[in-house]
Amino acid sequence: MATNPTSNLIGFLCDTPMVGSGYFGMLQIGLMAACHKWETALVVKSFDLSDPALADRIRALLARIPLRGVILPEPICEIPAVLDAVAEAGLPVVRIAPRSDTGMTLDICVDNEAAAYDITRYLIELGHKQIAFIKGPPDHSDAIARLAGFTRAMGEAGLAADAAKMVTGGFDFAQGLSAGERLLTMDSLPTAVFACNDEVAAAVLATAHRLGFKIPEDFSLAGFDDSPLARQVWPQITTCRQKMELTGYMAVDFVIDPPTAAEARRRPQLHELVIRQSTAKPRD
Amino acid sequence: MATNPTSNLIGFLCDTPMVGSGYFGMLQIGLMAACHKWETALVVKSFDLSDPALADRIRALLARIPLRGVILPEPICEIPAVLDAVAEAGLPVVRIAPRSDTGMTLDICVDNEAAAYDITRYLIELGHKQIAFIKGPPDHSDAIARLAGFTRAMGEAGLAADAAKMVTGGFDFAQGLSAGERLLTMDSLPTAVFACNDEVAAAVLATAHRLGFKIPEDFSLAGFDDSPLARQVWPQITTCRQKMELTGYMAVDFVIDPPTAAEARRRPQLHELVIRQSTAKPRD
Repeated sequence: MATNPTSNLIGFLCDTPMVGSGYFGMLQIGLMAACHKWETALVVKSFDLSDPALADRIRALLARIPLRGVILPEPICEIPAVLDAVAEAGLPVVRIAPRSDTGMTLDICVDNEAAAYDITRYLIELGHKQIAFIKGPPDHSDAIARLAGFTRAMGEAGLAADAAKMVTGGFDFAQGLSAGERLLTMDSLPTAVFACNDEVAAAVLATAHRLGFKIPEDFSLAGFDDSPLARQVWPQITTCRQKMELTGYMAVDFVIDPPTAAEARRRPQLHELVIRQSTAKPRD
Repeated sequence: MATNPTSNLIGFLCDTPMVGSGYFGMLQIGLMAACHKWETALVVKSFDLSDPALADRIRALLARIPLRGVILPEPICEIPAVLDAVAEAGLPVVRIAPRSDTGMTLDICVDNEAAAYDITRYLIELGHKQIAFIKGPPDHSDAIARLAGFTRAMGEAGLAADAAKMVTGGFDFAQGLSAGERLLTMDSLPTAVFACNDEVAAAVLATAHRLGFKIPEDFSLAGFDDSPLARQVWPQITTCRQKMELTGYMAVDFVIDPPTAAEARRRPQLHELVIRQSTAKPRD
């Protein structure tokens, strides 16, 4: 199948659990804004990534619907059979936050390692030494990179990234509740907690409220993403903005008006620290 | 233009501010699940409802993209020019939570009045007499119906729906913060606050935390929607579940497999009270 340069439809193919998340919502704001600019519409379709027929389902979709190009977020953008299916269709592919460079796609990258490093540095500069980290899903590239950034900042500052204070969590609220419960019932409380995303940070905050801890008086708390949730709780959560709206906007731009130079095919998306009320100097 | 019974695309046309909201996210979970079942995909497109060219933009979209049918949520589903544009294209239309019955579309309705009545009754049965209500946008049909349900329950119980305790808010968090601030700095605090949706309730909760009030000890708090946010704060918020996932699922079913009998063309969606930790009997 050839490309469809006249199609007004851009495909957004993702995993089913992503639908309804705050991350997806933020991305869609940017996707919709760029679709408005280019007078295109977005075809959204979610898939069960463990389905053995996944690649065939995508082939069938691409055969039925003339798309201008396809946007693939993490983690579907890492599946070789999916990339092959889209490549066979001859469509431009834009990947959001992929782990590795295939040389075949246009990529928008968030440097999760650097962003997590920056948050950790900020906590260290406030004076924190006992910093706990709540890890994301062990096989998720963003989670792995955030852990690496945390570990590097701790190591550079000569602080032990204490294994007992590196709690396995996940990316969702329920996992955050159980990780928060484990952390906050330990014998020695950390002076700061860095959660792998804002949902998990909000769960730690809810647990702290329930157990009678005050934030930031008893410990500081930081998240990651700058999702709406980080602003919809009290105290509001210090976090790292990934500019997901802008990422969505750029992804559509890349499909419609792809950059030609090789170095432009992989565009890093800047992050920025968003300092709110949940972090402060440690007591004493 | 004729209908496109072989098209695998269903249009979801909405207003721009809806994109990224928790409500949109919940709806999309159901839309995606039903699209999976029917092997269709969703074309999502958002519009500025104040754009004078709105109907022409929709005509242009429908002319370019062969759709099986169109799903219109509130408030875009109330705009006659939009309904006319879709009707001209001869496409089945499913409206979500419309205000009125046009006799021309398939409608999925939430009885906001009855749901708000049920929440208010529940607060009254706990023993509350001083109940404040935070109103939604004055021109939004859901908000108007929720206010009507509140007023009816208060009236039936012989309680004054005190005008001073009916605060104008909106549907978003920022509006909730200012409504919460006004309510919680009044001379006489209500014993219960019923906010028009969960985002606004979460804003009242954040304001209460900030001002040092305890919920439900100092006052009870209820929201509306059962959005994820209602569970991601502490205490978790008593609310009314609208079953938006199921609504999204049914909307796709209606497009693909429309009911024929007239009485089936307008299907009420059940609501249910979700009682959590934010409500209790009043003190004394």
